[in-house]
Amino acid sequence: MRLAPSEVLAGRHRLLHAAIAQQQLDALVVTNLFNIRYLTNHVGTAGTLVVTRDALHMLIDFRYREAVASLQASAAACPTLHQVSVPASYDEALVDALISLGVSTVGIEAAHLTVARHEWLTRTLAARETAITLRSTERIVERQRLIKDRFECMVIRDAASRLDAVADQSFVSLRAGTSEREVAGAIDGALQAAGYDRPAFETIVASGPNSALPHHRAGARNLKTGDLVVLDFGGILDGYCCDLTRMASVGTPSPEAQRLYESVRKAQQAAIDSVRPGVLPSAIDAAARNVLIGRGLGEAFGHGTGHGLGLEVHEEPRVGRPRSDTRESALEPGMVFTIEPGAYIAGFGGVRIEDDVLVTETGCEVLTSVPRDLRICG
Amino acid sequence: MRLAPSEVLAGRHRLLHAAIAQQQLDALVVTNLFNIRYLTNHVGTAGTLVVTRDALHMLIDFRYREAVASLQASAAACPTLHQVSVPASYDEALVDALISLGVSTVGIEAAHLTVARHEWLTRTLAARETAITLRSTERIVERQRLIKDRFECMVIRDAASRLDAVADQSFVSLRAGTSEREVAGAIDGALQAAGYDRPAFETIVASGPNSALPHHRAGARNLKTGDLVVLDFGGILDGYCCDLTRMASVGTPSPEAQRLYESVRKAQQAAIDSVRPGVLPSAIDAAARNVLIGRGLGEAFGHGTGHGLGLEVHEEPRVGRPRSDTRESALEPGMVFTIEPGAYIAGFGGVRIEDDVLVTETGCEVLTSVPRDLRICG
Repeated sequence: MRLAPSEVLAGRHRLLHAAIAQQQLDALVVTNLFNIRYLTNHVGTAGTLVVTRDALHMLIDFRYREAVASLQASAAACPTLHQVSVPASYDEALVDALISLGVSTVGIEAAHLTVARHEWLTRTLAARETAITLRSTERIVERQRLIKDRFECMVIRDAASRLDAVADQSFVSLRAGTSEREVAGAIDGALQAAGYDRPAFETIVASGPNSALPHHRAGARNLKTGDLVVLDFGGILDGYCCDLTRMASVGTPSPEAQRLYESVRKAQQAAIDSVRPGVLPSAIDAAARNVLIGRGLGEAFGHGTGHGLGLEVHEEPRVGRPRSDTRESALEPGMVFTIEPGAYIAGFGGVRIEDDVLVTETGCEVLTSVPRDLRICG
Repeated sequence: MRLAPSEVLAGRHRLLHAAIAQQQLDALVVTNLFNIRYLTNHVGTAGTLVVTRDALHMLIDFRYREAVASLQASAAACPTLHQVSVPASYDEALVDALISLGVSTVGIEAAHLTVARHEWLTRTLAARETAITLRSTERIVERQRLIKDRFECMVIRDAASRLDAVADQSFVSLRAGTSEREVAGAIDGALQAAGYDRPAFETIVASGPNSALPHHRAGARNLKTGDLVVLDFGGILDGYCCDLTRMASVGTPSPEAQRLYESVRKAQQAAIDSVRPGVLPSAIDAAARNVLIGRGLGEAFGHGTGHGLGLEVHEEPRVGRPRSDTRESALEPGMVFTIEPGAYIAGFGGVRIEDDVLVTETGCEVLTSVPRDLRICG
């Protein structure tokens, strides 16, 4: 497992300390586990991190004491990390920690903290007669994570490049009479053999009419000659996700299937060609969508064009139609996301093609290198 | 995939409509996806359900339209379900739906809704000049899910019983020179062969010194003669989770390892023997803990004794030490949870033994049937 070196973490901390000062907070309580991993290298299923203007205080329970100790003894140690042990409840320990740190204005991650925890913390801080106030913040750490640093680009590039072997294996396993679930099993085995920590999500093998269901997983259905098959899979390597969709046809595709494939292929290429710094994500979506609308497939493309990739398999940026409740930011070098338009005809079948791109100074680097053709299998 | 029959869903709805009326709400907004599945049989990665006093209104986006239509045409159709389509944002669609339903006092699930979504909804409802107020509620659906109905008991019993074959396979794969990851791979393969939808969590194979890390997963370490090995795995069958931990020794265990094993074994039995309706979960924890304290292993047992099982692999009841921020409820027939005390000695190794129990009228039924002995492997 490659971990971000200490100096990379220190760079992330510098930006975060500055953001905390700029928002006039004394501290930020980080409860999102991906954000905690990004800032500390620590991976856990529970944890709370209090970041002040100059240090990190991590609340950890018994289960992670050993793991954190060995992390801190390594070249990937988290700088300025103070460990605070949690005897029972994380929120009780958090109240104690905030009091002992002497902070007053404390940011919380509004997108992650639940209403129930927020109410309990507010009530308890008041009952303890502190002057600590909690203030909602949005996306402070996520904004940093949006721009991948050199370490992250290296890992994601490696993750994406290993998909070639997995795709090859998936095509080999694909023939009439095989069930979707068997093909998915072959893909999962190939992901493991390629060295991924685990699949990035439940592998999708959607055949024939199932290919028209964008969120079908993989079922008992046996592949039949003439089926379109959507293969959507990805792996997590050293914590970072990649995500790929390729299309296969069992035997020669019908002219209608071929046309559907060509339309989506053109839509995807239009989207890839439109990626460069300064462009809004919704413009990438529009580039793909307009191709499909022009071919009478606007209604058949019901989802967004893509999503960010990183420690999470769905993160920012969202590449979709503009939404009234979110303000978009323009693309910047270092952003990584999928481009995956699709078209789905109920009862007939569907097509989706997906690649992962990294925004560069002048355009984008396509990280996934599996050929995009409609693969004809036995 | 077995799904709860319509009449089982109708029974769940009756209880929920009554709870909504009793709390003087006009509607409850259900955002937790497990709660939505429990109430509707619909499985998705997004969704919002508005339950009024007499019907269910499900907000679904494009991706799930087909899946819900075919569910509604089946014997597992959700009664009184009205479908509301979401053109873009779930929260925008929710505001529209609440307005068109003419409700005023609306409960939200405080343990699941984030502060950010709550703030956006409150602001938007005010801006739309509605008289709708949101009120925090706690565990309304979870309280129902805590008591498994006949359908759920049948599925969980089946899930637990299939672990025998998986455990056998894990012991066969376990020998000196094999890596933890290879053993985990054999377990995951056996879970698939046994018919589970997928693993309930990342399979844990912790050998030698790693066995002292309660949350170690499975790594590159090769098993050595003399190792204690913690094998912790489970599967999801038709949506329901089971969870098992067994211990193996590579070659003959040392007397110290044997003593550690015996202590945890006795602690676990004491906990199992104390399960019956009316007892507090913390008393089950105390039963196990007191055995370990009596043997000088109190400090070595840093986690709780168990957790509820159902649609989630960690749900209520929490079986642990009493906590100042939560009020405990006594055990009732139909509750299902794990009993998994452990003892961990840094640098030496650890032991955990875990079974799944269903509370009955008079005591409990142990659902997992894999022999609990310290299995000596090659």
